[in-house]
Amino acid sequence: MVVVLSAMSGETDRLLNLAREMAEDPDPREVDVLLATGEQVTVSLFSMFLRYQGVPAVSLLSHQARIYTDRAYGRARIIGIDTARIREELKKNRVVTVAGFQGVDEVGNITTLGRGGSDTTAVAVAAALKADLCEIYTDVDGVYTTDPRIYSKARKLDKISYDEMLEMASLGAKVLEIRSVGFAKRYSVPLAVRSTFTDAPGTLMTEEDEEMEEIPVSGVALSRNDARVTITRVPDRPGIAVKLFKPVADANIVVDMIIQNTGMDGYTDLTFTVPKGDLKKTLQILGPVAQEIGAQQVSGDQDIAKVSIVGVGMKNHPGIAAKMFETLARENINILMISTSEIKISVVIEDKYGELAVRALHDVFGLENPPPKKR
Amino acid sequence: MVVVLSAMSGETDRLLNLAREMAEDPDPREVDVLLATGEQVTVSLFSMFLRYQGVPAVSLLSHQARIYTDRAYGRARIIGIDTARIREELKKNRVVTVAGFQGVDEVGNITTLGRGGSDTTAVAVAAALKADLCEIYTDVDGVYTTDPRIYSKARKLDKISYDEMLEMASLGAKVLEIRSVGFAKRYSVPLAVRSTFTDAPGTLMTEEDEEMEEIPVSGVALSRNDARVTITRVPDRPGIAVKLFKPVADANIVVDMIIQNTGMDGYTDLTFTVPKGDLKKTLQILGPVAQEIGAQQVSGDQDIAKVSIVGVGMKNHPGIAAKMFETLARENINILMISTSEIKISVVIEDKYGELAVRALHDVFGLENPPPKKR
Repeated sequence: MVVVLSAMSGETDRLLNLAREMAEDPDPREVDVLLATGEQVTVSLFSMFLRYQGVPAVSLLSHQARIYTDRAYGRARIIGIDTARIREELKKNRVVTVAGFQGVDEVGNITTLGRGGSDTTAVAVAAALKADLCEIYTDVDGVYTTDPRIYSKARKLDKISYDEMLEMASLGAKVLEIRSVGFAKRYSVPLAVRSTFTDAPGTLMTEEDEEMEEIPVSGVALSRNDARVTITRVPDRPGIAVKLFKPVADANIVVDMIIQNTGMDGYTDLTFTVPKGDLKKTLQILGPVAQEIGAQQVSGDQDIAKVSIVGVGMKNHPGIAAKMFETLARENINILMISTSEIKISVVIEDKYGELAVRALHDVFGLENPPPKKR
Repeated sequence: MVVVLSAMSGETDRLLNLAREMAEDPDPREVDVLLATGEQVTVSLFSMFLRYQGVPAVSLLSHQARIYTDRAYGRARIIGIDTARIREELKKNRVVTVAGFQGVDEVGNITTLGRGGSDTTAVAVAAALKADLCEIYTDVDGVYTTDPRIYSKARKLDKISYDEMLEMASLGAKVLEIRSVGFAKRYSVPLAVRSTFTDAPGTLMTEEDEEMEEIPVSGVALSRNDARVTITRVPDRPGIAVKLFKPVADANIVVDMIIQNTGMDGYTDLTFTVPKGDLKKTLQILGPVAQEIGAQQVSGDQDIAKVSIVGVGMKNHPGIAAKMFETLARENINILMISTSEIKISVVIEDKYGELAVRALHDVFGLENPPPKKR
């Protein structure tokens, strides 16, 4: 057994505050050296405790567990794990406790993987060891058909495909750090989410199977992280999109849904979403550009919500989108934008209708009922 | 410039308390992993601060600075330093901040050097780099002729030889961790003790020179760490000393001064000192042994003090011991034990006379006056 631990609750913030007392914009390399102590404390304490309970245990830090990353301090990516030392300790029948969230670059500088990095460490170590199962113990007891705080009829899923989970995670279901799910999918690591506080079985993430494909919709997700930007009367010429989106991308702003209405009389309206926190910056960037290309106006709207239905079975079940739109229409909810993928349909609506939309869709797709067991 | 840092005040104790919450007798390897975070925090914070002040800086932990030790967790000894990485950073004109107190063994396990270990790290790094000078910044501003809290006439020494400092340190002058002085002597590292809080020049430790040899006594030290054990009417036979001291040594108890009175009628009295904390254990061990060998009684006395005069000039100045004994006699202080080395004379006296003895000896050897400058 290998146990990957994150820092104690609040510790990372405590350390970041110390750093800010030292410098306005503390050096990223040194911030990582500092933050890495959080997990160093928990793995050593946990190993002591296991030994005290009679369980042989040994802690390994990133340079000992040989978790190699690139040198992108604060958001490093794992590029490889040399499992020799971990295997050596496992052979001695020891539980190996590995410091999550951190790695070393090729010359031994300490790096950290960013928020939620311990999940990523766990999945990466499981993949490198070809483990039977990677269990993530967290403060929720699994993945639900929707957020139980939004709808009491939400049902815990016994299993879910990696792809569904990726869509759910990126759509605002804050169960798991999204990179860890991507990692699990790429290396086919069976990944379970379970509660730290109960013995209840959690939700297992695996490759999609026949059973999953029977169910058209697995979950409904609500996200309030986006804002909408509309540019009206954009001259409909080749190269205009590049002129608009290149400076936004250069500012590291991630544009999500993009809608371009059919142009009339040589003009078109462009609408897209950006993270709420980037709205102001986006408008500042696009104001001059819009003027330059002769567009009419750039405006932003923060009062939007994105509601999505997700399911691998969607591919084989026609009419899911129609059913979704029909349901929203029946509730008098106006759809502002639509975007679809093979296993997901997202709509942007007015913020105030978010919860209503989730509940209506949860009902119409019968998500409160467990799927029939196949024999 | 290389800066070696210790943990923040109180941090090591805070971490040790966490460890004790986990286990009654926490695993030494894991305790070292835990404690090493103390210095990891300070080197990263200090490097951020230096960079913020416009000084290029980089922190190095023990596995990065390549400070190799044996595997004696909690009291490891440095066995070598590979300075390649430190030199590489120095070549980039960076201040290198090295985590003190810690090392790695040959397979990368984290070790710590014990209390005061950061001083040892500093001297070891200075020796490995063949540095011009190693300055220890501490809460005192130098080495004094005696403890200024005991005698207000105590004078700060401009310089002192390694050997004198070793005697002073082992006799209770808590300025520097004794291993660091031994290291400095072995590798001829000029070592200065200075205050963290003032710009006053401190005390420089070097090889002894002619000037030092002119002064018979450099300092007077008082130690209250010892207890006295007396075994009366020990049969005066070969092999008796082994029978008595072997079990004490086996229990890791350090015996310091040993006095054996001339035997009369085939019996002798044996007196020696042990650390106060080990007195009870020593008496428990020796009770049965004394009975077995036919000695009369084993008794302990905690109310003793050891007063020592130290000076490399003692070798060339006869009559120093006589002057010491004479001075104590004049103050009606009874000498219980005497022990001498080439550059030190120690006496054990009743505890209550400790300060009086220090002041009388400080006066009689004229320590309040700075030595005449040689041209």
